[in-house]
Amino acid sequence: MKIIETRSAPNPRRVRMFVAEKGITIAYEEMDLMKGALRTPEFTKLNKFQRVPVLVLDDGAVIAETMAICRYFEETHPTPALMGTGAKQRAQVEMWNRHMELGLMFAVASAFRHGHPAMAHLEVPQVKEWAEANKPKALEILKVLDEELGERQFVAGDTFSVADITALCAIDFMRPARITRPDGLKNIERWHGEVSARPSAKA
Amino acid sequence: MKIIETRSAPNPRRVRMFVAEKGITIAYEEMDLMKGALRTPEFTKLNKFQRVPVLVLDDGAVIAETMAICRYFEETHPTPALMGTGAKQRAQVEMWNRHMELGLMFAVASAFRHGHPAMAHLEVPQVKEWAEANKPKALEILKVLDEELGERQFVAGDTFSVADITALCAIDFMRPARITRPDGLKNIERWHGEVSARPSAKA
Repeated sequence: MKIIETRSAPNPRRVRMFVAEKGITIAYEEMDLMKGALRTPEFTKLNKFQRVPVLVLDDGAVIAETMAICRYFEETHPTPALMGTGAKQRAQVEMWNRHMELGLMFAVASAFRHGHPAMAHLEVPQVKEWAEANKPKALEILKVLDEELGERQFVAGDTFSVADITALCAIDFMRPARITRPDGLKNIERWHGEVSARPSAKA
Repeated sequence: MKIIETRSAPNPRRVRMFVAEKGITIAYEEMDLMKGALRTPEFTKLNKFQRVPVLVLDDGAVIAETMAICRYFEETHPTPALMGTGAKQRAQVEMWNRHMELGLMFAVASAFRHGHPAMAHLEVPQVKEWAEANKPKALEILKVLDEELGERQFVAGDTFSVADITALCAIDFMRPARITRPDGLKNIERWHGEVSARPSAKA
């Protein structure tokens, strides 16, 4: 079993954190997406959508997509639960993970992919106006997140979950995406310090 | 328990199909997003992100986000399984659902939200160049899906799953998004006929 990734990208970091929180040891193989390594015929055979991370199982089956890989490990290593327990909590974790992913991470990633000169050869066409439109979207979601984190310890409740992993990786990716975190988001600051101190944040 | 939705929108349709496949009866409440009904203070209190569908539980808890609502019902009504059984199949269903959602549905929805004149007051700023950039993206994913459906009956394997629901709702939403399905995608045509014939497709 191995995970193919590009270490500097935010989605592989989400999987590494998830795997580290589970205490799982697994082999990682590096492929530099910035150098076009995901466009080769060999990699395209593994994942027609040419994205990392990809999990290759011992039987050769391929699981692409960050959350699908996390789901696999949640099933094979249920403890500690990172996707909630019971119907209601599982739904709440999924809701908050999706707010952090489809809202925040996508806005930050769009600002990066469509705004950063180094992405111009990979994101075709690069739509600069779309990069700019996403920066205020990211900041709006941060404002909501700050309010929410005033009411509870973690993004989806009183327990650390995959939603915290997604939020941390998205917020830390704001720097390469050239979005400045506004001052005064005190609850995010408190939470960011706590979550960044977990050993998994350095995985 | 009730679901708040806008009947004509593709994400509420995904939830209705999912609920119908499970054989669950539930109350629906209509709110017309095109008329700004999701921007009211009352609805914003339910979902700060101002999107439908939203599931309101009997204890007042709110589950927003399509897949979080589906997850809730998958947990409370496990049969028939629509998200796979066992670690590997669950991961594969999630992978294909995400390919259909983050790839296809997002491209189609972006073409609609950023291209349709009726959305100009809701999607601010409306980035026309982004709408256009998404049309070829949607067609590329359709090409991959057509190849895949030449190898198996359903999107994620030999069993109907949430990935079929997402793909059907995305493909049927191509018409309002003004993307023409190319001729010659024979496997998609076969699958589209079969899946559209299920009673849940009319839910």
